[in-house]
Amino acid sequence: MRDCIRVMVLGTGQMGLGIARLLREKSGIELVGVYARRQERNGLDLGPLIGFDKAIGIAVSNDLAATLEQTRPHIAIQATCSTVDDAAGEITTLIEHGVHVISIAEQMAFPAASSPDIAEQLHRLAVTNQVSVLGTGINPGFVLDLLVIMLSGVCANIQSITARRVNDLSAYGHAVMRDQGIGLSPAAFQKGLENKTVVGHIGFMQSIHMIAAALGWEIDRIEERREPIISQVRRETPVITIEPGQVAGCYHTAVAYREGKPVITLIHPQQICPGLEAVETGDFIEINGAPNVRLSGTPEIPGGQATCALAVNMIPRVLTASPGLHTMADLPVPAAMLGDARQWVNRYQRGQSYD
Amino acid sequence: MRDCIRVMVLGTGQMGLGIARLLREKSGIELVGVYARRQERNGLDLGPLIGFDKAIGIAVSNDLAATLEQTRPHIAIQATCSTVDDAAGEITTLIEHGVHVISIAEQMAFPAASSPDIAEQLHRLAVTNQVSVLGTGINPGFVLDLLVIMLSGVCANIQSITARRVNDLSAYGHAVMRDQGIGLSPAAFQKGLENKTVVGHIGFMQSIHMIAAALGWEIDRIEERREPIISQVRRETPVITIEPGQVAGCYHTAVAYREGKPVITLIHPQQICPGLEAVETGDFIEINGAPNVRLSGTPEIPGGQATCALAVNMIPRVLTASPGLHTMADLPVPAAMLGDARQWVNRYQRGQSYD
Repeated sequence: MRDCIRVMVLGTGQMGLGIARLLREKSGIELVGVYARRQERNGLDLGPLIGFDKAIGIAVSNDLAATLEQTRPHIAIQATCSTVDDAAGEITTLIEHGVHVISIAEQMAFPAASSPDIAEQLHRLAVTNQVSVLGTGINPGFVLDLLVIMLSGVCANIQSITARRVNDLSAYGHAVMRDQGIGLSPAAFQKGLENKTVVGHIGFMQSIHMIAAALGWEIDRIEERREPIISQVRRETPVITIEPGQVAGCYHTAVAYREGKPVITLIHPQQICPGLEAVETGDFIEINGAPNVRLSGTPEIPGGQATCALAVNMIPRVLTASPGLHTMADLPVPAAMLGDARQWVNRYQRGQSYD
Repeated sequence: MRDCIRVMVLGTGQMGLGIARLLREKSGIELVGVYARRQERNGLDLGPLIGFDKAIGIAVSNDLAATLEQTRPHIAIQATCSTVDDAAGEITTLIEHGVHVISIAEQMAFPAASSPDIAEQLHRLAVTNQVSVLGTGINPGFVLDLLVIMLSGVCANIQSITARRVNDLSAYGHAVMRDQGIGLSPAAFQKGLENKTVVGHIGFMQSIHMIAAALGWEIDRIEERREPIISQVRRETPVITIEPGQVAGCYHTAVAYREGKPVITLIHPQQICPGLEAVETGDFIEINGAPNVRLSGTPEIPGGQATCALAVNMIPRVLTASPGLHTMADLPVPAAMLGDARQWVNRYQRGQSYD
């Protein structure tokens, strides 16, 4: 292709704006439109929203179909929601306009895990409209699934897998604190679990299904546990302060069983200020097999930055994938896109043109 | 596909036999033939060669074309050599017989690095014959390139990359000792470098070109250095004993420059008994970028086992790839193949059949 890759962003939260900012820095890419669900964003110029001191001529719109018709993107990045149910409407509109889709909705990383019927519908619609749809993000989409799958590639056999991501939520806002039950009493945390206001991590089902599909394992059942991380010390972030005895985060785990034995254990404690109790953050993968594989990194790969980068870096792979619904395990590995984005499209294309 | 995937192995060294043994354990795969360059292997039954106490009805053959015509494999795994020049003849024969190819020849991991003309010829021939060709292995092919590329996918920008693999050669045989200059005096090591009997690691050029292509970096030049690892202590393996002052291995590095600055540094010291001087073996990746990424594992992923597993695990991906020459960065990530191999072929195939 000779013309720039035309990209649209859906969502003007921290992720949507981070992705928009990154797209503006990439050569061979033109950010052509931004859609927001929030009505108060309608008509605003994107410039000040992403830290520019003036307008850049891209107005945020609440009308997805109209923006698509005006701006005619090749591909859109969706950063508006977490679930397949919530994401499917916008994705359907995008597909029907012939637009490829990258979604960072957590459940879209492996949509068949939560919503097999919708996943099948989206796949058929994408094939009919000759576009590709991918869910990605740091987790699910990378640390607790794709990286595990890739490392398994050096194994002749595997008994069990344990992957752990210990992160620091101190930089996040009120919504994240609420979802993890941060600041609650232990009793209120329990109640929050019961009435589902405390959710913990969204993504274990997706990661486990992605790993199992890649390895060829049939999973019998998955057990999830959510425990409060009760602080021994005072912890303070820009948006919240907690006292000893209050909940600093959610220790969320999932164990997948195969033939009655635990084969995949995913551990993801999320909290504020873990360093105050000498908790080391990081990403840790252990495969017990032939051979054993251990890989870890500290601190953890920063989630927000990484999710924005992954969404942008996957653009050429999605543009040149076969039509249909994909997971990160089906496409070539992500790579930092440090040159003109069109070079990969041209390289991957075999007789296909986006010009 | 309903019938088993028919696989042939080329090579009866440690790797070829390891691959053959692993193929026999995989369901959905049938090992149909084994080719050897060594004349003394011609006509031998494979069974005793891979540790069985009786014949298994697969005779090793020195005649590649005849074996292909008799056994009609879907795919062949080549484990006979290290260079593209040396690999190209057998690969050409395989392609002309309509057989997909996985090669563990180090230079085949990115054949255009050493031999752009041969790479182009093999690519065209593969496209004409509608088969796919892949080079893989632990290194090049995984640790110092594919893993680096995948981790770069979480980055918006990158200043430099350093990847280091510190391994233990104690389990290897005479040929490996000779290639690394193990057991030589420092003066003989220098002379070995000059007359090219000491070669160090084969694969830096391939890894650097694979990373650079994936990231979109133009590399100005690559500087390689090979230094003797001079032992302070006595070191002993089943095949060699060295005294203090002798060479225990080769400290081989490569630095790639872009716009005059070092951007990719690969470090691969290979020696016997590193633990005797408290050298920790392992795989270590550092990306300086936005964000920084650090990942490491100790001990190192065992090279021989991993190379055999990767070659076998990539079978479904190569069978269903687009025709032509591929690198590990172009195909979906490897994964341990723990179920019937045909399920992935059926899943990846879109209207194509190997039945």
